[in-house]
Amino acid sequence: MLVAALRRRSVARPPLWLMRQAGRYLPEYRALRQRAGDFLELCYNPELAAEATLQPVRRFGFDAAILFSDILVIPDALGCPVAFEQGAGPRLEPVRDETAVDRLRRDRLLEHLAPVYEAIRVVRRSLPAETALIGFAGAPWTLAAYMIEGGSSSEFYAARAFALRRPDIFAKLITVLIEAVVEHLAAQIAAGADVVQLFDSWAGILPEPEFERWCQAPARAIVTRLNARHPEVPIIAFPRGAGVRYRSYAQAVPVDGLSLDTTVSLAWAREALPDVCLQGNLDPAALLAGGVVACREARRIVAALGERPFVFNLGHGVLPQTDPAAVAALVDYVRSVRLPERGEP
Amino acid sequence: MLVAALRRRSVARPPLWLMRQAGRYLPEYRALRQRAGDFLELCYNPELAAEATLQPVRRFGFDAAILFSDILVIPDALGCPVAFEQGAGPRLEPVRDETAVDRLRRDRLLEHLAPVYEAIRVVRRSLPAETALIGFAGAPWTLAAYMIEGGSSSEFYAARAFALRRPDIFAKLITVLIEAVVEHLAAQIAAGADVVQLFDSWAGILPEPEFERWCQAPARAIVTRLNARHPEVPIIAFPRGAGVRYRSYAQAVPVDGLSLDTTVSLAWAREALPDVCLQGNLDPAALLAGGVVACREARRIVAALGERPFVFNLGHGVLPQTDPAAVAALVDYVRSVRLPERGEP
Repeated sequence: MLVAALRRRSVARPPLWLMRQAGRYLPEYRALRQRAGDFLELCYNPELAAEATLQPVRRFGFDAAILFSDILVIPDALGCPVAFEQGAGPRLEPVRDETAVDRLRRDRLLEHLAPVYEAIRVVRRSLPAETALIGFAGAPWTLAAYMIEGGSSSEFYAARAFALRRPDIFAKLITVLIEAVVEHLAAQIAAGADVVQLFDSWAGILPEPEFERWCQAPARAIVTRLNARHPEVPIIAFPRGAGVRYRSYAQAVPVDGLSLDTTVSLAWAREALPDVCLQGNLDPAALLAGGVVACREARRIVAALGERPFVFNLGHGVLPQTDPAAVAALVDYVRSVRLPERGEP
Repeated sequence: MLVAALRRRSVARPPLWLMRQAGRYLPEYRALRQRAGDFLELCYNPELAAEATLQPVRRFGFDAAILFSDILVIPDALGCPVAFEQGAGPRLEPVRDETAVDRLRRDRLLEHLAPVYEAIRVVRRSLPAETALIGFAGAPWTLAAYMIEGGSSSEFYAARAFALRRPDIFAKLITVLIEAVVEHLAAQIAAGADVVQLFDSWAGILPEPEFERWCQAPARAIVTRLNARHPEVPIIAFPRGAGVRYRSYAQAVPVDGLSLDTTVSLAWAREALPDVCLQGNLDPAALLAGGVVACREARRIVAALGERPFVFNLGHGVLPQTDPAAVAALVDYVRSVRLPERGEP
């Protein structure tokens, strides 16, 4: 059903999954988490990562499972080790000069990430045939921003200043990351992912010329190469915060789906982004406010987007403090929606 | 010159000022800061606040001084005490229910903020006649977000969930804040401010219906009332992160100037926002990257916006780690720009 909607075929109701549908808001995840060591060990443990992936599908019957993993496994595999400290977010060995870029390990990505692909195989075996499995990767700009900053940030000014000061070195880093993202997504597809999503979580903080150069052009390169290798696998991109630039992105990057953050005007999106399946954009704060509010907001989104190719989702991930009962109410509502028949594209 | 550009009269070069042009990147400010107690005491000390306001004008010859103050003086005046802890950002007594909204002190705003107006009088006396003095206030949504959250946040989910769950109580809070903002800006004008700017720093995180209700409509109410009381004073609004919604905001809110954040596409803005003076949108990261990079980026902005009413500024505040020499290089460049003559509007 997810694949059908992404291919712009008629579906009876919007397919439904939620970004970060696996995670801390679920008691079964919190129990599982205690059995793993640190967060990356969980990502690299095929059985536990598969179990975390399956938990929300079992509980809510989502139309898709998204692999439980993290965008920072790519920097980790490239030899820029990542540590998740309790409550402090990720820490990375910062990449701040050409030597550090040249030192990145480009020779062992698939080997380092083998447990991730094994997790996909485990999930695919347990998942109902009608449930899609989504693989994913962080996009080059977002990964580079973490690598240069050495961790998370609200504005990533060090990374932005680096890209402005030394676009030559920054371009080398982006090229390494394009290659790594293509390899990582292709390996996830080979292991059984039916759809892949590219997360450019920090696309929105870049000024327009940098957005085009460091978000849009790399996404175009990645998607073009994956489409050539795996034409059967739909690709969703999520350039979070792109604003007006969602339009040029949609024109430049040949994706099947475009995930809209919470702030996108749906009336605008309907007009400006005609030829792509839209996904989103419920505010995770609506789920915090409870099932009644979430369903009210969901109705508004279905009314705005229901008559075009559309996947129901949030505009950002489920928050840890979300009540699973609010998610259950939202799921009930979306499963009750009936879309009008559309002609085939 | 700033007033002329905001009135869409022809000017020889773009007027220039920078958001947070007073502050920690200046050694003279750091010296001054040590003489004050905590940050709010500095804001409430007319002599010191005036001195902080004047420092960057003396050093760089900006075309406008912006009052050294803080958007959170309004919550503070309303009896929601604000404390700035070293390195931790502001802390406020959270407003989370109707009782707390009803308890807000609406009776003493001008009295509590008298030192701010005194600072404006001191600055105005020392400022060259050709240098505009800008007063400012935080916009209701941004102030409410801090008040409900009890401090800063990257996403203000508690405030967003509160507004979705209890729009009735939230509307009461916004109404109190509209009144307070009008009074505070009118008092700054009475004390000598030539221009005022409304900062809706967190406008960008709201979904569209909430953006319209909690950012756009309150700004319209504030600007309409101020225009009626002080038609001679131009108003600039800064709905940071509004993206596509800059257009509906510009249509709904009768401002003279619209400040564009770093991410706005200038080609789009030129087309979508025709009848307003645009201000912005240099990335503060370009100043971090040094004077050469900042001037290169500034040239791109002047090329895109120079032929229409335009004020040179950043898309966000000057960062504390900025080298004053980079600011000096930027100032030299902008002062060297010569704009073509335009017909009067």
